[in-house]
Amino acid sequence: MKIKLTLFLIVVLFFAANAVKAQDSLMLRKIYDEALVDGKCYDNLHYLCKNIGPRLSGSANAQKAVEWGKKLMENYGFDRVYLQEVMVPHWVRGEKEVGKIIDGDKEMPVAICALGMSVATPKDGITANVIEVHSLKELDSLGESAIKGKIVFFNRPFDPRFIETFKAYGTAGDQRFMGPAAAAKLGAVGAIVRSLTEIIDDYPHTGATLNSGIRIPAAAISTKGANLLSSMLKMRKMPQIKFYLKQSCQTLPDVLSYNVIGELKGSENPNKYITVGGHLDSWDLAEGAHDDGTGVMQSVEMLRILKTLNYHPKNSIRAVFFMNEENGDKGGLKYAELAAKNKEDHIAAIETDAGGFTPRGFGFTGLPAGSLQKMNTTWKALLEPYAADRLTDGGGGTDIEPLKSTVPSVVLIEYLPDSQRYFDIHHSAKDVFENVNQRELELGSAAIASLVYLIDQHGF
Amino acid sequence: MKIKLTLFLIVVLFFAANAVKAQDSLMLRKIYDEALVDGKCYDNLHYLCKNIGPRLSGSANAQKAVEWGKKLMENYGFDRVYLQEVMVPHWVRGEKEVGKIIDGDKEMPVAICALGMSVATPKDGITANVIEVHSLKELDSLGESAIKGKIVFFNRPFDPRFIETFKAYGTAGDQRFMGPAAAAKLGAVGAIVRSLTEIIDDYPHTGATLNSGIRIPAAAISTKGANLLSSMLKMRKMPQIKFYLKQSCQTLPDVLSYNVIGELKGSENPNKYITVGGHLDSWDLAEGAHDDGTGVMQSVEMLRILKTLNYHPKNSIRAVFFMNEENGDKGGLKYAELAAKNKEDHIAAIETDAGGFTPRGFGFTGLPAGSLQKMNTTWKALLEPYAADRLTDGGGGTDIEPLKSTVPSVVLIEYLPDSQRYFDIHHSAKDVFENVNQRELELGSAAIASLVYLIDQHGF
Repeated sequence: MKIKLTLFLIVVLFFAANAVKAQDSLMLRKIYDEALVDGKCYDNLHYLCKNIGPRLSGSANAQKAVEWGKKLMENYGFDRVYLQEVMVPHWVRGEKEVGKIIDGDKEMPVAICALGMSVATPKDGITANVIEVHSLKELDSLGESAIKGKIVFFNRPFDPRFIETFKAYGTAGDQRFMGPAAAAKLGAVGAIVRSLTEIIDDYPHTGATLNSGIRIPAAAISTKGANLLSSMLKMRKMPQIKFYLKQSCQTLPDVLSYNVIGELKGSENPNKYITVGGHLDSWDLAEGAHDDGTGVMQSVEMLRILKTLNYHPKNSIRAVFFMNEENGDKGGLKYAELAAKNKEDHIAAIETDAGGFTPRGFGFTGLPAGSLQKMNTTWKALLEPYAADRLTDGGGGTDIEPLKSTVPSVVLIEYLPDSQRYFDIHHSAKDVFENVNQRELELGSAAIASLVYLIDQHGF
Repeated sequence: MKIKLTLFLIVVLFFAANAVKAQDSLMLRKIYDEALVDGKCYDNLHYLCKNIGPRLSGSANAQKAVEWGKKLMENYGFDRVYLQEVMVPHWVRGEKEVGKIIDGDKEMPVAICALGMSVATPKDGITANVIEVHSLKELDSLGESAIKGKIVFFNRPFDPRFIETFKAYGTAGDQRFMGPAAAAKLGAVGAIVRSLTEIIDDYPHTGATLNSGIRIPAAAISTKGANLLSSMLKMRKMPQIKFYLKQSCQTLPDVLSYNVIGELKGSENPNKYITVGGHLDSWDLAEGAHDDGTGVMQSVEMLRILKTLNYHPKNSIRAVFFMNEENGDKGGLKYAELAAKNKEDHIAAIETDAGGFTPRGFGFTGLPAGSLQKMNTTWKALLEPYAADRLTDGGGGTDIEPLKSTVPSVVLIEYLPDSQRYFDIHHSAKDVFENVNQRELELGSAAIASLVYLIDQHGF
């Protein structure tokens, strides 16, 4: 009798498990069909890029983007749409920058742009000898005697051997973020940093540089410009080569801005949240298409898809347009602060800020023990037909990481699309709508919505 | 004693297996480093696209490409470089085609291009009523009474729900390849076919159409043009809408051309071959960058990498530039014929003709039983760090499939890069060098070279 009962239970459980799997599989297919056949993500991105455009924190365009984003969510009829007030820095580039290599009486213009949060040069610019370094360590070892009065030229290229380009960015990035401040400490009068990209072209790539300590003008130089400058420095004795830098950027007083949040209310656990976000602000040189127009549009598309499919989540699900990821992370910090203050339990926070390219998978930080292994047999099989099934250890993002401090139980998840083209355009004038592929973008929305569904149904 | 010996053997085998794995892992890393740091693939592709350009079979450019390809391989110092003679069709497009929707006395020009191997219209073009169909089945069900004297407009769009775009191409493709001939049988005077792409734009996409039976002029129409024509047909009563088509393409006498072959001689099994190939010919509307400049350049790069790393293969390894994949497959047929005639044993034939996009994996046809499962535990682990580890059942390619008939033991392998962007540009004026990403291309070369190495070392 006992054996029969056990057998019966095993059979019931077997069929129940298969029924769940079949139901999940069906739901994922519905999500993908909605994204690929009736997706709104691409058109929304077009509006954001072409009708609003660059939207650096504090700018009039950033405010337009907030208002449009809120209206978009309201039109979708989510259960709740609201703004979170947040004070953000307001840095402006000013006039187009000028950079020249000076070789005796010859001048060679090179493409540069001020790094975000940098200070201006004097009105007529600065001219100084150049010293090329390849790391902060090398800078330190050269010391004040070698650096004082010079422009430091950080020229460590991307390492092409990394398969994931974000790792190349990670290992070269300290030059941009910390290099100028470190050079200033040693008496440098300016800093120019090789653009953080592998591609060799004439586009300078901006990005934030450390906004504290002694401040010197800091600019990014295009990779072609960097290669030219480096070869000139090798060809000529150093004192002959000088660099002329002129920029008029400045930091204005902080501005009131907003995170934009849309929500579907959970039917079982309304105070448990699964949050998906990207950042609404963008650098000023282009349209912030891949960085991070695709991310915000995928976030709201995830919510639209679930609502359109008439899905009633167990937990509350949010799409968040974070403000000020690029030069301050004030939006991410504010979200985390308010989550704690309002005692919102967060199951998971997913960030999509790696471009709107073909999905490969997701990276997870803070999973319960054994959960990733389990996922890699169950969820992996469901995501495999969509080739979004690389579920790996580690991953986060600037906007969601503060949440880990205020709501420690949250699982941080990074959406991982193909990374090969991202740094070709990242933070440069090339980050425009035309460089986004509709299907790649839509597949990303669907992958994210699928993961949200699985988390909502099954937890970790 | 016996137990001790068994234990000893187990330990030896364990370490031996791990040593092999470590050696393989090291070799793959070397292959990737060579491809990513000192790769020649991208520069070679630049030459092929910009210094040679479009190279349809039988054209002067195709001959230039043969000569340059042979020289390139000779310069790399492969053990053997040679040509295989093959007679190929010689179709020429003639003057730019003209297509217009005629609505009473209004004319609306639309972007069209003759389908490959199509016949010309009379010199002044043809004007006829249009009948829109969505499948060959629908065409047949309409029958001769509905079709006779008309231009048949095949307008079945890509199905966006397929995750792999090649499946959408596969299911829409019969309209282009067989549609015009089927329409001709029913008395149609011309055929226009919706371009085989999901993207909505003004570029017509060419491609071969069946070259037998009754022949009528057949052209591809851009997706924008197709949508316009379809909406006009819906808006107006049919007899009012006519279509004007003018094209002057023709098929000239066959031309002597060549497959280009480079070889590293096997040290253990010189008469066993692992062949990697793409096709050297391309459509005439652009530079044949992704189709299939990337494939031929990856094939030769695979061989260059192995030689540069001083790898001495057990089996002979070939890079083959097949001629005439686009409109006849004469090169693939000739290769297969000569392989049989020369009694060349082929272990594997890998085709790379799906664009130079980020690798996802490989598809296999004709593996021994259990081999794919084994691969998916051993080789998969080696390829996983490079995200080229989707090893799936099924796959081949136009150039290598004839080999299966003449050397039945061959395993056919299809290189599977990401497919999302391929049909945006495929067979259209957009298939240019600028749409190829250097890293994506290089990663493909490395993935292919890695697989060749693993097959050479371990077989299936």
